[in-house]
Amino acid sequence: MKLAVIGAGAVGRSVVELAAEYGHEVVAVADSSSAIVADGSSGAGGRVGLDTEAVVTRKAETGVVGDAHPADALAADYDVLVEATPTTLGDAEPGFSHVAAALERDRHAVLANKGPVAERFKDLRTLAADSRGNVRFEATVGGAIPAVSTVEDIEPGHVTAVRGVLNGTANFILTRMAAEGLDYDHVLAEAQDLGVAEADPSFDVDGTDAALKCVILANVLSFGGADTLDDAHEFTLADADVEGIRDVPGSALRLAAEEGRTVRLIGEATGETVQVAPRLVPENGTLAVSGTQNIVQIETSHAGRLNISGRGAGGPETASAVLGDVGRFE
Amino acid sequence: MKLAVIGAGAVGRSVVELAAEYGHEVVAVADSSSAIVADGSSGAGGRVGLDTEAVVTRKAETGVVGDAHPADALAADYDVLVEATPTTLGDAEPGFSHVAAALERDRHAVLANKGPVAERFKDLRTLAADSRGNVRFEATVGGAIPAVSTVEDIEPGHVTAVRGVLNGTANFILTRMAAEGLDYDHVLAEAQDLGVAEADPSFDVDGTDAALKCVILANVLSFGGADTLDDAHEFTLADADVEGIRDVPGSALRLAAEEGRTVRLIGEATGETVQVAPRLVPENGTLAVSGTQNIVQIETSHAGRLNISGRGAGGPETASAVLGDVGRFE
Repeated sequence: MKLAVIGAGAVGRSVVELAAEYGHEVVAVADSSSAIVADGSSGAGGRVGLDTEAVVTRKAETGVVGDAHPADALAADYDVLVEATPTTLGDAEPGFSHVAAALERDRHAVLANKGPVAERFKDLRTLAADSRGNVRFEATVGGAIPAVSTVEDIEPGHVTAVRGVLNGTANFILTRMAAEGLDYDHVLAEAQDLGVAEADPSFDVDGTDAALKCVILANVLSFGGADTLDDAHEFTLADADVEGIRDVPGSALRLAAEEGRTVRLIGEATGETVQVAPRLVPENGTLAVSGTQNIVQIETSHAGRLNISGRGAGGPETASAVLGDVGRFE
Repeated sequence: MKLAVIGAGAVGRSVVELAAEYGHEVVAVADSSSAIVADGSSGAGGRVGLDTEAVVTRKAETGVVGDAHPADALAADYDVLVEATPTTLGDAEPGFSHVAAALERDRHAVLANKGPVAERFKDLRTLAADSRGNVRFEATVGGAIPAVSTVEDIEPGHVTAVRGVLNGTANFILTRMAAEGLDYDHVLAEAQDLGVAEADPSFDVDGTDAALKCVILANVLSFGGADTLDDAHEFTLADADVEGIRDVPGSALRLAAEEGRTVRLIGEATGETVQVAPRLVPENGTLAVSGTQNIVQIETSHAGRLNISGRGAGGPETASAVLGDVGRFE
């Protein structure tokens, strides 16, 4: 497949780097200020894709991927558009328009950007219904964990709930608080030094990121179980009941440990509700994954509970999910 | 899809019972001595499938599913043949011939029977290559755990190894030995009383069942990573290095516990080797699932390790995997 990769952060760059290994070629890459588009006619040896190594090197050395305008990448002759720009809320722009442009041209779109899937799911589905292209978004939930495709394979109508630990930064902080007996502020500073937490950690520690992932899962359950687009309830972040970890005192973790328990930021989605909050869980239990690991628990009607854990973030991990989605279009 | 279900044990019966809920109809069911085939022309209301409740009730009450000959089910007008007869080794008959009959008629086949996938994988792939039908076998490995499809989605070329706990009976016995400080013979008798172990437990406790599952995974890795059928190494049980749990002394579990470890029967498949043996694992670690739970660990080239745990056996659990495979043909 010919890929146009929009967004050249960690995920976009990893998609560019790994695409060939998955049998795809990259014909266009855009960052926020520039783009590079392959000259399709130059392939004397049959090659129509970009020299991906050169693109990644140029981005690292100069901060831009090429000399073209970002819009040129959207107009390129691709099979699948990969939307890997930063997540934005509300109208989820410009990510939403990038995906819309692909669908309107009857091309597929794969999102690593949570915004359009969490905030405008019905618009996405409506555009896809009118297009020969389709939309996939495995990378938006749990990095390398195949949460969305596993729910789809089981079929949303046979899944009663999905819950789990979906934010590595918050989980790292809670894990360190419990292990070292330290307070939130102290561990946050450590996490920031290590690059695990951002300078402004709000998106992670206030539960917003986990909530967006749960909103996406709730949309998969709601739309997947409905007969028509109009029968499904569309979830957005506004539907989520969210509590973060800033107010979890170190003493709560010490008390929990005395009873063989610990605290994790647990998100849960059903076809009707989305909740994110710190919860007591058994210390050696399945939900008590450590550090930056994520876990997803899928409750099924006929096959009990399925647990999937793995790396919830990271460039290559998330790019693997993107390229798995691309493979499903073949 | 119209299903012909061959085999009316726990899995076959659950497939028959759940098919309608997954949007499929059952047009034929066979057990070892009888069959029932829907009269396709009788569907005044458009219904062409069997009354599945009546079939299951008749099997329970009389021991047979119908008055027809088993071969009549193979000749029925189905879209997908579900092979759920007991696993046999060597030539894997009669399961192999059932699947071959479906493929030769350009129909799909879904196996819950491990025999043909573990012992005659290349024959299956060769038949499928010449057919408009295809073969799937998620239910043969780990019950409700989507081991095969997750490896396929990641792509076998990007998976370096798959390992895990793949036999619930052996795991139940090891879990109880560790928890109660009892010896193998004592716990085996208890497991037999509970119906967790068979009167002849050899297939489970000698590691054969786990080895067959690992052989199947090795075939998925080997054939999935190869360019042609002839480039792939075909694994059979004869290629597996297998050690069971009969000789694990209770004292080994006690010694392990003193160091925070326990023993699990671990199977591992790569594209080159298959090994099954009791191994020391951390007591609260990911591989130390309890009782009849199974776990599969998938080692990937770019996305780290993925852990999937859930119910590794059971009629509805395994039937869910079968019906998930059926859904992938749509």
